[in-house]
Amino acid sequence: MLESYAAGHWFRASDEGEPLLDAATGEEVARISGRGLDVGAMTTYAREVGGPAVRALTFHQRAALLKAVAKHLTEQKDELYALSFHTGATTRDTAVDVDGGIGTLFSFASKGTRELPNDTVILDGAPERLGKGGTFVGQHLFTSRPGVAVQINAFNFPVWGMLEKLAPAFLAGLPTIVKPASQTAYLTELTVRRIIEAQLLPEGSLQLIAGSAGRLLDELSVQDSVAFTGSAHTAGILRRHPNVVDGGVVLGVEADSLNCSILGPDVTPDDPEFDLFLEGVVTEMTVKAGQKCTAIRRVLVPENRADAVIEGLRDKLATITVGDPRDPDVRMGALASLGQRDEVRKAVEALRASSDLVIGDPDAAPERGAFLTPLVLRAHPGAAEPHDVEPFGPVSTVLTYDGTAEAVALAARGRGSLAASVVTHDPRVAREVVLGLAPWHGRVLVLDRDDAKESTGHGSPLPVLVHGGPGRAGGGEELGGVRAVVHHLQRTAVQASPDLLTAITGRWTTGAAQRVDAVHPFRKSLADLRVGDTIRSAARTVSREDIDHFAEFTGDTFYAHTDAAAAAKNPLFGGIVAHGYLVVSLAAGLFVEPSPGPVLANYGVDNLRFLTPVKAGDTIAVTLTVKDISPRATADYGEVRWDAVVTNQGGAPVATYDVLTLVAKTWPAS
Amino acid sequence: MLESYAAGHWFRASDEGEPLLDAATGEEVARISGRGLDVGAMTTYAREVGGPAVRALTFHQRAALLKAVAKHLTEQKDELYALSFHTGATTRDTAVDVDGGIGTLFSFASKGTRELPNDTVILDGAPERLGKGGTFVGQHLFTSRPGVAVQINAFNFPVWGMLEKLAPAFLAGLPTIVKPASQTAYLTELTVRRIIEAQLLPEGSLQLIAGSAGRLLDELSVQDSVAFTGSAHTAGILRRHPNVVDGGVVLGVEADSLNCSILGPDVTPDDPEFDLFLEGVVTEMTVKAGQKCTAIRRVLVPENRADAVIEGLRDKLATITVGDPRDPDVRMGALASLGQRDEVRKAVEALRASSDLVIGDPDAAPERGAFLTPLVLRAHPGAAEPHDVEPFGPVSTVLTYDGTAEAVALAARGRGSLAASVVTHDPRVAREVVLGLAPWHGRVLVLDRDDAKESTGHGSPLPVLVHGGPGRAGGGEELGGVRAVVHHLQRTAVQASPDLLTAITGRWTTGAAQRVDAVHPFRKSLADLRVGDTIRSAARTVSREDIDHFAEFTGDTFYAHTDAAAAAKNPLFGGIVAHGYLVVSLAAGLFVEPSPGPVLANYGVDNLRFLTPVKAGDTIAVTLTVKDISPRATADYGEVRWDAVVTNQGGAPVATYDVLTLVAKTWPAS
Repeated sequence: MLESYAAGHWFRASDEGEPLLDAATGEEVARISGRGLDVGAMTTYAREVGGPAVRALTFHQRAALLKAVAKHLTEQKDELYALSFHTGATTRDTAVDVDGGIGTLFSFASKGTRELPNDTVILDGAPERLGKGGTFVGQHLFTSRPGVAVQINAFNFPVWGMLEKLAPAFLAGLPTIVKPASQTAYLTELTVRRIIEAQLLPEGSLQLIAGSAGRLLDELSVQDSVAFTGSAHTAGILRRHPNVVDGGVVLGVEADSLNCSILGPDVTPDDPEFDLFLEGVVTEMTVKAGQKCTAIRRVLVPENRADAVIEGLRDKLATITVGDPRDPDVRMGALASLGQRDEVRKAVEALRASSDLVIGDPDAAPERGAFLTPLVLRAHPGAAEPHDVEPFGPVSTVLTYDGTAEAVALAARGRGSLAASVVTHDPRVAREVVLGLAPWHGRVLVLDRDDAKESTGHGSPLPVLVHGGPGRAGGGEELGGVRAVVHHLQRTAVQASPDLLTAITGRWTTGAAQRVDAVHPFRKSLADLRVGDTIRSAARTVSREDIDHFAEFTGDTFYAHTDAAAAAKNPLFGGIVAHGYLVVSLAAGLFVEPSPGPVLANYGVDNLRFLTPVKAGDTIAVTLTVKDISPRATADYGEVRWDAVVTNQGGAPVATYDVLTLVAKTWPAS
Repeated sequence: MLESYAAGHWFRASDEGEPLLDAATGEEVARISGRGLDVGAMTTYAREVGGPAVRALTFHQRAALLKAVAKHLTEQKDELYALSFHTGATTRDTAVDVDGGIGTLFSFASKGTRELPNDTVILDGAPERLGKGGTFVGQHLFTSRPGVAVQINAFNFPVWGMLEKLAPAFLAGLPTIVKPASQTAYLTELTVRRIIEAQLLPEGSLQLIAGSAGRLLDELSVQDSVAFTGSAHTAGILRRHPNVVDGGVVLGVEADSLNCSILGPDVTPDDPEFDLFLEGVVTEMTVKAGQKCTAIRRVLVPENRADAVIEGLRDKLATITVGDPRDPDVRMGALASLGQRDEVRKAVEALRASSDLVIGDPDAAPERGAFLTPLVLRAHPGAAEPHDVEPFGPVSTVLTYDGTAEAVALAARGRGSLAASVVTHDPRVAREVVLGLAPWHGRVLVLDRDDAKESTGHGSPLPVLVHGGPGRAGGGEELGGVRAVVHHLQRTAVQASPDLLTAITGRWTTGAAQRVDAVHPFRKSLADLRVGDTIRSAARTVSREDIDHFAEFTGDTFYAHTDAAAAAKNPLFGGIVAHGYLVVSLAAGLFVEPSPGPVLANYGVDNLRFLTPVKAGDTIAVTLTVKDISPRATADYGEVRWDAVVTNQGGAPVATYDVLTLVAKTWPAS
């Protein structure tokens, strides 16, 4: 009997539950029931225990915990793989689910550390000056919702489906309640159990519902969200729930999708792309027995290639052995259940209204498990069903097009899809088709001889790229690195004086107080350095000799620095000017503190802009202010970002930029 | 009789229509009817005529047209102001609507030019390397939907409401259909008429429905969106429409909002912030007679300040004269209609269940027009109604709190609001309250003595800041500069080889072909320069003398460049290294072409990172490749962004950055 993890305890329903059967053998694997589970107590626990605990951590700390979970699950892989056979999955299929899920955790851990601040608030965009005097400034920021992230998952990826939603929600500071599809919930339950046992995540940040979600949605409100993957039908029920319609619950949906793969008009059977195309279709038909929301349902080919494509598919599909996934010679396992197979057979019947079955036999596979052989149909001209009926199994329909515009139009008849692929080596075809497909898709793969070797294929969502699609595909968006984290956060525009904005965001804002004291800020370690600490440099006059010398020394003899007559004709300068690189080099000479100290290195410069030309005789000075301090969790130093403004003798800004340094946490180093 | 602008013609309904009455005098201003209007023809016209015409333009071209419309409307202001009196608005109120609307057009025109490319596709984020070999790369991009943007507006801002939705939709390449609230539709109709007459926007990009929207939503599908501003009740009807629930229509809502203003616990009646707080409340109660979704409905003050606040409000409100908005001495005009006044009176009755009316009399104002005097209530402890009942008029309720945590908790009881304000001069209070309020609000204003003079006030949405709020406020997001444009676009992850990705996006991607030919790229004007054009420089050895000399010349004598013993102890360098600024200065000397030519200036550098230390004796070379070319519409030059990679003798990258130059469109200049 599967258990739920609810409000700090494993909960077992008191009734006998429903049996869950092995997809290949029909034997009972587990039983499931949610009877008696108090979902109200779970949401309260998530809000009052899990949420505050996660939000007390910075993004970097949350990322480190995700990495720890990923490492821990890596050690549990054998057990997960063994259990996964019951779902009908081959070892190759399970790699997509288990390794894919763990890889997603690693990826979010890495993105969270490298692209998010070591803080609990994310700044969005640059400050907006809202008044001419600079005393009133706007700044967008993202903050964590004090709510619950509920995930309702499909049966096909019991591990990946859970982890790909957990990672961004956890990074965003939200506790998660997982509701897997019953059919394969035993694999999700085992994964959650191993995570909970390891005690890596804060208590209350991960809970599990085994069985019906019951009245879970009734418990949700404004700050809560539901991420749903499954059928359009169930999505429609969720979208009509009063707490979604009127109660402010944020609902994200990833649903049906009639994805297509397009063979470019440039590709002949002699091109390597022709075989890549066939391989892509066969892979998507057979991995997970075609039970993937991203699988290729529509195969779009030029009319004159249809026969060759079908014959090519016939040859390749003939090598696919279907059977018990535990058999290492088997290339394709079972569907998740006999019920699922019935659904696929019904869908194929519907497709046959306007398509001929050209490869395979829906009734050919052994009856005992939920087996089905791959099936290919060929659509009649103008067929409607291929754009409307989703056979959630190893089934694809070949359609023909005439010209790239028609290919795009046919793809769009799917009314919004998760993923499309275009197989072409022609840059013009790639541009036309991709930009045509883009408004209708969350992801478009372009496959050719150059990227084929490293390509992850049509059907693989990647953690760093968005996953989701408009319209029929649900309109949701998951993954995509930090983009997925931000979906869980609230964006707010804050308007304030520079001083108060600095206090609120922790980042120094132009116009805020600048503190100059007796100690040069380069003498301060992170223990002493504060946002707003400032260096106001001495001044230095830039002579014509300096410019001449710099030109000669560096070899940068551009006429604007060397040829008075030619420089006078330059529309922007009207005479000899100092090199921009000379200006920033001299500025460094003005602000630097030379002795060994906590500042270890200048590792870069951002947003350098030369605003006013510096002419011979101009006198420059620089003001350097600590803008942002970000200690690293895993090193004895951190990043310090300095706001640099170089001005001339008239006070006009000559150059503005951010100087990026590494600074020790303590000095002398402890 | 108001007319609709539909499918290229002004359409007048055949029936008598409904009368629209002057808010102050009760006289008939116009009649309205949509009977017989073919909304299906309008959506088809938008999709087939308007959409393709807008999408044929680049973002910069669209921005220029918005600016032209803004200038044209500026010339029509007198006429708009005169007509606006009928809505009950004073001249000051109309400035918010008309000048606010025109200002929004100018702002989006400016943002569109400065922050969007002169192209039809926006790249989102940096390329993602998807394989170790670099042959498979991901890039997110935003493309325009081939759909229709429908806007359904509230009665209170007939000009601003239309323009603030039109500007981002038009910039995003979408044709718009405007459906104003009937009550004040005559002002929207006049504005649209003036825009259409001027023939500035492409035909079909702007249409108007005067009267009922009829079956408009039935005509919409996957690529269409509806932006609705109005009541939560109507929003609920729209959210339940089958084309929204199941059809993929994207719906954005801005609805009821019980905004609050919080007096900080640090503020005493002697502080300047105390008066700023009172001024803010009075302004929000009286501008547009309180008929603003952002107005302050809840006044949150420390218990010990409640009496002083109420007395202060009483004094200030006593100076507000209510009456015919045409009278220049009148400070507050009429509500939009007698019906609206009835609604407000009903809401005040509901509030009185748990609050005392302490200022004003709901029945005191003259009966003929829709007048109402400002009303202030004081809530009993624990009152529920102030967090639930929205009196859409000059009404606010004073509530008391104990400690900033309770202030935030009370604010959150509004279940999501558009805007909040905090009046404080204490940095700690500002941080605590703002971060507490943020998840519940789209915008938070912090008001103090420092920003008061330039502050635009609690209730003013600004084009550069997002407008919208979670939960009860609708969950939508408008404005915020480019953010509002992006909401209309589809984000798609494209995966391809670097060469095909370059072809698709028009921006050179690392790994794509680099073209070196006989002509130095600095000799090419924009007419000849192509993405991928490359300079591979000669090499230069950096000597210890170079480093010593550079240190002495620039004054940058940082020990890592000058003191071998100390530099050896640096954990990152382990010995003397060349200055980063020396490396980029020498690199410029290696890639520059010195003679006068089309390259006019280096105006900046982006994303400079020093990756490998350069030691004495190392030999460096630089590769410079054209990454992006963006000609300016309004100048005879444009921006060229170059990818710069400096490598050492071992081929390791020493520094990577983008060099930003201005390059002439033709050379010699024509």
